[in-house]
Amino acid sequence: MSFPHRHLLGIETLRPEEITTLLDLADRYAALNRQPDKHADALTGLTQINMFFENSTRTQASFEIAGKRLGADVMNMAMQASSLKKGETLIDTALTLNAMHPDLLIVRHPHSGAVDLLAQKVNCAVLNAGDGRHEHPTQALLDALTIRRAKGRLHRLSIAICGDIAHSRVARSNIMLLGKMENRIRLIGPPTLLPSGIAEFGVEVFDNMAEGLRDVDVVMMLRLQKERMDGGFIPSEREYYHRFGLDAEKLSHAKPDAIVMHPGPMNRGVEIDGTLADDINRSVIQDQVEMGVAVRMAAMDLLAQNLKLTRAEPA
Amino acid sequence: MSFPHRHLLGIETLRPEEITTLLDLADRYAALNRQPDKHADALTGLTQINMFFENSTRTQASFEIAGKRLGADVMNMAMQASSLKKGETLIDTALTLNAMHPDLLIVRHPHSGAVDLLAQKVNCAVLNAGDGRHEHPTQALLDALTIRRAKGRLHRLSIAICGDIAHSRVARSNIMLLGKMENRIRLIGPPTLLPSGIAEFGVEVFDNMAEGLRDVDVVMMLRLQKERMDGGFIPSEREYYHRFGLDAEKLSHAKPDAIVMHPGPMNRGVEIDGTLADDINRSVIQDQVEMGVAVRMAAMDLLAQNLKLTRAEPA
Amino acid sequence: MSFPHRHLLGIETLRPEEITTLLDLADRYAALNRQPDKHADALTGLTQINMFFENSTRTQASFEIAGKRLGADVMNMAMQASSLKKGETLIDTALTLNAMHPDLLIVRHPHSGAVDLLAQKVNCAVLNAGDGRHEHPTQALLDALTIRRAKGRLHRLSIAICGDIAHSRVARSNIMLLGKMENRIRLIGPPTLLPSGIAEFGVEVFDNMAEGLRDVDVVMMLRLQKERMDGGFIPSEREYYHRFGLDAEKLSHAKPDAIVMHPGPMNRGVEIDGTLADDINRSVIQDQVEMGVAVRMAAMDLLAQNLKLTRAEPA
Repeated sequence: MSFPHRHLLGIETLRPEEITTLLDLADRYAALNRQPDKHADALTGLTQINMFFENSTRTQASFEIAGKRLGADVMNMAMQASSLKKGETLIDTALTLNAMHPDLLIVRHPHSGAVDLLAQKVNCAVLNAGDGRHEHPTQALLDALTIRRAKGRLHRLSIAICGDIAHSRVARSNIMLLGKMENRIRLIGPPTLLPSGIAEFGVEVFDNMAEGLRDVDVVMMLRLQKERMDGGFIPSEREYYHRFGLDAEKLSHAKPDAIVMHPGPMNRGVEIDGTLADDINRSVIQDQVEMGVAVRMAAMDLLAQNLKLTRAEPA
Repeated sequence: MSFPHRHLLGIETLRPEEITTLLDLADRYAALNRQPDKHADALTGLTQINMFFENSTRTQASFEIAGKRLGADVMNMAMQASSLKKGETLIDTALTLNAMHPDLLIVRHPHSGAVDLLAQKVNCAVLNAGDGRHEHPTQALLDALTIRRAKGRLHRLSIAICGDIAHSRVARSNIMLLGKMENRIRLIGPPTLLPSGIAEFGVEVFDNMAEGLRDVDVVMMLRLQKERMDGGFIPSEREYYHRFGLDAEKLSHAKPDAIVMHPGPMNRGVEIDGTLADDINRSVIQDQVEMGVAVRMAAMDLLAQNLKLTRAEPA
Repeated sequence: MSFPHRHLLGIETLRPEEITTLLDLADRYAALNRQPDKHADALTGLTQINMFFENSTRTQASFEIAGKRLGADVMNMAMQASSLKKGETLIDTALTLNAMHPDLLIVRHPHSGAVDLLAQKVNCAVLNAGDGRHEHPTQALLDALTIRRAKGRLHRLSIAICGDIAHSRVARSNIMLLGKMENRIRLIGPPTLLPSGIAEFGVEVFDNMAEGLRDVDVVMMLRLQKERMDGGFIPSEREYYHRFGLDAEKLSHAKPDAIVMHPGPMNRGVEIDGTLADDINRSVIQDQVEMGVAVRMAAMDLLAQNLKLTRAEPA
């Protein structure tokens, strides 16, 4: 089997060739999504439940569209903040849903590790749609597919990840994926927004955009995660934009054909200049959203195939 | 092509024969909706997204049922009030959804013109489900179908539109549609609730129900739109009902076979007497709801046909 | 016809052989739900609307999954508390939805009798998903199926229903169903939480768990319905658990193979010891959830069959 995983909980456990398998399939789904009839039947007869303990209009929409296009019965569960009060509630909720025999459970949760914990309790495939500051694997995969399509390859690229790296599961999953694929990674941000123990990742660190962006192929901006900063240093937006916000001048230090990425939703004028974000010669931000649906279709397809094989085995 | 439109943004740009084409198709869908199996496949493989920036249980339900019966993958986006703060957010949200390759985008928005603006930014067909005080085309079309089925024709009728006309996109779209089809339109309401510059519409204006309703074929009541009256004159409900609320006595001035309409939800005892609203010999209010699903199926079917033709053309 | 009902409003009007018919069909759907492909076509082309005037994540999810697996077009209506203000609003809402030609209407409402009232106004099949303190028929049916599968029969069993019986529509529907099937029923709880006029049900009453549980086959715990206690006696959770919460010691008075049930969501450490709830040798709580989907599929299938027969009759 080319993708021998029961769940997709993070990038950490994926091997480079598995990432390639998933991206290759996603490329085919990206082509399907541009057809008038966007239906395939990889998930026909299967039940997909979206459990979002954190609001995320765009990620939930992306998973919902992906599942429906593949023929799944998709159900959205509105998980209220109130159901987070007790530790056991998450597990009780998961066990209850599990008893309804879903095949795919898509989970976003504000606590790092909550999705892994839940995956141990259920019989179905679990996809992590973001857990705390830990992982957001489908975001890293869609970023990888976007880069591969724009640059023609996903290795030996010089890639800068800029901004609020300490609070970002997007950055964490991307650093792991891009490292596995043998790219050179640079982190750029104020020291207060860089994670501790950064050296272990094998990355270069900069606190100056002009230096950090020099000759890079890819500029990956991050959203300022104010909601995840608990009590620490919060920069003023104006000062932040002046030093770390991406504009044409700062981008001029990168390669002439460098692409600009952002996971959205953007704070225009804080992390990135609005005009630059809309410049289709440099920005691939809309492509990232498009590839998001394709990558989620591919991930659910591969996990569903494994599910069928597992269930077909003698007990 | 008999319905050469990319979007359905308003009645203003429709020609009479296009309205007839749409209503003829809606008649066929109305028959389907009375069958045990209500499925057709006009939207199979297509993705419909409902973006309601204003709550509307009934209109959203009508579009959702219409899309599902035609085989579309339907997704509801809960657009929170908070995402309305900045002008660019609407566009960013639209561009994000557009990148997921929807085919049909159903949009309701509190600002007049917002849906037109959005339609300029996306690749898919946009249907206006109500924008500010501007247009609500599917409401006017379902009213037209209801009248045509009850009266056997949609021209040379005398039609009274009564109540809070100034704040009503329903009235505005209806006045345009009924005018295009060569009906005589009377507007009845207190002068403070009539739009300025009313003369240009070629309508007669009354501030007295007995006079205004004399010998009309159709009495179209409107909902008192308190939520859209910003700082102006607000009549007391009791006084309003006394002067403009429809009851049997006021209705006796209309033709003996005049029908009674209301777009819902009704304020019983304010715009209309509850007993009269429930009188199936006079009231076609439930028929309006029924025709709503049929008209939306027809509109989405026609736009989807155009979408396929456009995409099949060489670029 | 083996299930000659237009609606499923309560257990009260069902005959024992009809209950058996429904449970037999549910057994077949329970087997389907364990297959990789869980689709059947009993509801293809039909429209199911879930109208929940009270929140219930698990019951709504169960009905939604059940309908989707049977091929229905399923729509969830978020019925806000605000729409409950006026008595007529429920009826107006029901008539509006009815005009959209749904086939199945699933209704939960905080007022006893509201679902029966609504059923009189519409043309489609209505399923009661819980109304006030009145009935919750699918819960009683799923409990019955769970017991029948665990015990091999659904008659001549000794069954204890424990806890807050006065406020529980679950208890009320279960007492009727289990009585019709000729089981011996014991009610255990503090006198303040027992319904008045209890003698008419032909049950035994205990206020002591050790005595009440003696030699029973089934222990059915109830949720403490604090939200339905208006101004009456509310026991402290600690005291309640000490006297009426189920733990291993109290359970030792039941038969050695007695099963433990709870309709969920559980208050662990209030009605039931958490370890006992998770003990798969005694607890069938997850089975109840699983049977819930199967029972709802069976109920909707049977009602849809009747709907088709009714509509096929000459008017």
